[in-house]
Amino acid sequence: MLRIDQYTDVFIDYLNTKIKTREPKNLYDPILYILQLGGKRLRPLLTLMAADIFESDYKKALDAALAIEVFHNFSLVHDDIMDDAPLRRGKETVHEKWDINTGILSGDAMLINAYQLFENYDGETFRNLAKLFSKTAIEVCEGQQYDVDFETRDDVTLPEYLKMIEYKTAVLVGAALKMGAVVANASESNCNKIYDFGRDLGIAFQLQDDYLDAFGDPKTFGKQVGGDIIENKKTFLYLTALEKLDPAHSIQLSHLYSINPQDPSGKIETVKQLFIESGAAEAIQNEIELYTNKALSTLEELEVKGEKKQILREFAQALMRRKV
Amino acid sequence: MLRIDQYTDVFIDYLNTKIKTREPKNLYDPILYILQLGGKRLRPLLTLMAADIFESDYKKALDAALAIEVFHNFSLVHDDIMDDAPLRRGKETVHEKWDINTGILSGDAMLINAYQLFENYDGETFRNLAKLFSKTAIEVCEGQQYDVDFETRDDVTLPEYLKMIEYKTAVLVGAALKMGAVVANASESNCNKIYDFGRDLGIAFQLQDDYLDAFGDPKTFGKQVGGDIIENKKTFLYLTALEKLDPAHSIQLSHLYSINPQDPSGKIETVKQLFIESGAAEAIQNEIELYTNKALSTLEELEVKGEKKQILREFAQALMRRKV
Repeated sequence: MLRIDQYTDVFIDYLNTKIKTREPKNLYDPILYILQLGGKRLRPLLTLMAADIFESDYKKALDAALAIEVFHNFSLVHDDIMDDAPLRRGKETVHEKWDINTGILSGDAMLINAYQLFENYDGETFRNLAKLFSKTAIEVCEGQQYDVDFETRDDVTLPEYLKMIEYKTAVLVGAALKMGAVVANASESNCNKIYDFGRDLGIAFQLQDDYLDAFGDPKTFGKQVGGDIIENKKTFLYLTALEKLDPAHSIQLSHLYSINPQDPSGKIETVKQLFIESGAAEAIQNEIELYTNKALSTLEELEVKGEKKQILREFAQALMRRKV
Repeated sequence: MLRIDQYTDVFIDYLNTKIKTREPKNLYDPILYILQLGGKRLRPLLTLMAADIFESDYKKALDAALAIEVFHNFSLVHDDIMDDAPLRRGKETVHEKWDINTGILSGDAMLINAYQLFENYDGETFRNLAKLFSKTAIEVCEGQQYDVDFETRDDVTLPEYLKMIEYKTAVLVGAALKMGAVVANASESNCNKIYDFGRDLGIAFQLQDDYLDAFGDPKTFGKQVGGDIIENKKTFLYLTALEKLDPAHSIQLSHLYSINPQDPSGKIETVKQLFIESGAAEAIQNEIELYTNKALSTLEELEVKGEKKQILREFAQALMRRKV
């Protein structure tokens, strides 16, 4: 097996061979632009590693990996329109650089292009990839809708929040791994286990994102610390704190999540204090550990040679140690 | 075989069994809304007829027919956002009734749902349907992009215009028929012929739309007569007239297509006169006949019993006699 960064390099080389200008330019140029903006390429990396783990030539999984990356970028283009986001990876978003209509139509074409990449696989492999992809893509749409709905609801429960992040983020991590397994003709049991591993790791990853958003080190955390608090985003920390606090402090927290002060630093400090005092900060760390351990124990159940699992174990641990 | 209206009834009954409320409601309600707005259901009808022509139980083609209709409605939802259209079939468009974000996300889910409908077919049928669908869907996106690009270009040629309407409209007619043939396991030659028949009929249909927009009877034509002229739309009539007119009249026509008078009736009359005097009105009628005849002669080449072709012949002739 390769080192983790070697898979990433192979993927980026492959992506670059696929980057070609096509007509009509106004449809395809935005696609090339967003695909070349960079990003961690974590999902396609997982597809390649999974194929390798199940004894396939990982290069056979390159088109499936690319489909996952194209889909992920499709969802960024459309989500950025919905969120009215000016920047993505420090550069203009597609609808800022072109316009909203271009973002919509180029996004649509990316979703279709992702399906077309599966045409490079035969018979049942094609069917299994397309089916898994559709199921995952619909769940990502549902997760995005729940996320939008939560903004205007004040009765969101923790299980609902967990389901939202599972759909919006985690199922695609599971699917990325399972696609590598499908390409490698792994057993159904192995396919399902690696999916569960990825999904649980994805949930842990997203919860950690919530945690770092409040408690990350401003020096190493990529985004603005406290961003979720400024935006009054109902994350795991907020929902847990609201539940655990006594009525007076719970009302105080609700109130803080209804205001948008010019200088948010006081609000951020008070909210973080409430997250700590309520036990929410500890609860989310326990939850992260719980999902990480669940993922790691599913990994142990995979029916492959022990050394093959090592790379996924390392990947999971690196992901959980991250400060960014 | 059934009568044409009977296939439509069967399709609408099937569609109604599939209409169910689902969660999240804000994602799925707009999909139910647009699918229940009506429309002529021409494309799914063609899928069912094609399956019947090639000796399959036409009911086996219902899911493919539904996929085509769902895709068509997806493209309407996203196009209506891009065109900022308030009405569709006399009712509010999705983005008017909800908002643009809902239109984007529900549209995305419809595109994925269309693919999922093919999962009800086995092996090679699934593959062939999904592949044909992706190719067609990408061409529809490209056609839409060319249509947008043409708005700001003043050097659009007739062949470019014909390619645009082929992609934006006609390939989906061809694909609707071919999907029925694929479900019925028709030979490759028959699949390709029925596709060509549909594509050429689709081009004739769109050209007739251009013609009726200028010369239709206001009593029977569904839309505002002269709508394309008001919007300065570079249709076949305009491009042909521009080419055929002497320089002075050609400049007059260009000029008329650069203004937006409060009362457009004078402009409409002058433009129509130029369309007639230039020979463009006659040229488009010849072009419509040419594509219709091309379609009908491809139909003769189909290797099926003569009486089976009769329903498609009738359909083509009815379509071309239409005044609406």
